[in-house]
Amino acid sequence: MLDARHPAANDRRIEALLLHHEIDAFNAAYAAALDEQRLTDWVEMFTDDAFYAVISRENADRDLPVGLIYCENKGMIFDRAFALEKTAMFAPRYLRHVIGNLQVFGAEPNGDIRARANYVVVQVLFDRPEAKLHQVGVYYDKFRRVGDVLKLAERRCVYDSLLVDNALCIPV
Amino acid sequence: MLDARHPAANDRRIEALLLHHEIDAFNAAYAAALDEQRLTDWVEMFTDDAFYAVISRENADRDLPVGLIYCENKGMIFDRAFALEKTAMFAPRYLRHVIGNLQVFGAEPNGDIRARANYVVVQVLFDRPEAKLHQVGVYYDKFRRVGDVLKLAERRCVYDSLLVDNALCIPV
Amino acid sequence: MLDARHPAANDRRIEALLLHHEIDAFNAAYAAALDEQRLTDWVEMFTDDAFYAVISRENADRDLPVGLIYCENKGMIFDRAFALEKTAMFAPRYLRHVIGNLQVFGAEPNGDIRARANYVVVQVLFDRPEAKLHQVGVYYDKFRRVGDVLKLAERRCVYDSLLVDNALCIPV
Repeated sequence: MLDARHPAANDRRIEALLLHHEIDAFNAAYAAALDEQRLTDWVEMFTDDAFYAVISRENADRDLPVGLIYCENKGMIFDRAFALEKTAMFAPRYLRHVIGNLQVFGAEPNGDIRARANYVVVQVLFDRPEAKLHQVGVYYDKFRRVGDVLKLAERRCVYDSLLVDNALCIPV
Repeated sequence: MLDARHPAANDRRIEALLLHHEIDAFNAAYAAALDEQRLTDWVEMFTDDAFYAVISRENADRDLPVGLIYCENKGMIFDRAFALEKTAMFAPRYLRHVIGNLQVFGAEPNGDIRARANYVVVQVLFDRPEAKLHQVGVYYDKFRRVGDVLKLAERRCVYDSLLVDNALCIPV
Repeated sequence: MLDARHPAANDRRIEALLLHHEIDAFNAAYAAALDEQRLTDWVEMFTDDAFYAVISRENADRDLPVGLIYCENKGMIFDRAFALEKTAMFAPRYLRHVIGNLQVFGAEPNGDIRARANYVVVQVLFDRPEAKLHQVGVYYDKFRRVGDVLKLAERRCVYDSLLVDNALCIPV
């Protein structure tokens, strides 16, 4: 409960809530950008030196860095996004992200904010009627404020599914 | 962070959070009404002149208004809900909604609030053991305050799955 | 909107929001404990006299108490968790919870807080590539504050899926 004798403690709780909400809103916008194929918007959600990787849970558990996608800065993230768009190497499909179970772990000494969330990506291939679970996993994140804007300085997507289909290289 | 020099700015952020929470709670109650087959409760969540439609992503992308369900007011929504209940035209099943990734876009000049959210409907047929993804998609919404109560003035359900099974006409 | 003339009403709304957030964070931590197989952490999220059961929707609707799992206190919950770990009676798999649609119903006379949430558990078997819906359902909960810590005094997991596979006895 709010405690009139400890306004500073109340403020801290409200601030934690506002930060949680801000990251939640970020994740909803992130999902919408990918689901609507707005890849430029998606790329702009990362810092210039952002780390972005998609790694199997099996490899992550063993600290193996090998992943489906491995980007060490925004340029590599951009290339990855638009290489995909140009080659159209995969069957046409709809994707739909649901991001839930957000946990925000507070700030590091440099101000970066650690967080994690579970994600589910559902896919509908144009030539197959059924929606399928394309990928499920966890985002391990580091958020950073650039000016007034929250960006991802790091997103490691660790997926549970051991095999993925011919679209394995799409960003999630 | 909360800024003691700008109490009005703090209040705006807290108000945005309260509104987000209110719509989130609305969506949870909406899902529960459908999942528990409380269709009268479901109908009451719309304004008298509400627009409610269930449209494929394919048609929505081409601005085709053709949909599985198309209701231009609460009377039509009521009819749709209870036509279903009376005819029992579909195999008995359980449904379970998960609504996530809520985005609230602020108020229009008339006070209506635009929002969107992703939805997943999981179905369990009584004679088949496995839970299946029945429908995934996006709610594009316009909320309106009627007295103290938040209602839907518009909900367009745009689904990704291209085919749906024999229950295609159930509200989502 | 916040109303400067009614600070007490504003505070009540903010308090409801903080409580909702606290339970939401609890559920995210609960899911993470199970997904990461940290079963000791999971057991510690219950009160000593906690009731924990996993029941089919069919039986719950008929008020039949028969369930897959039925624990009347923390000792039984502990036994259930670690019996599982010792026997390894099921094929190795990854699990991933998504908990959404949280509804918080306010406090009972003794201070316990009633809440509910929908859950989806996705499973990936090590020897099968596809992620599958393992279980979907609802948590019907009673939370209690023990010192400063929120714990579950009761969690009834009511699942929609009528059949479950050989892992039917895992906690969810």
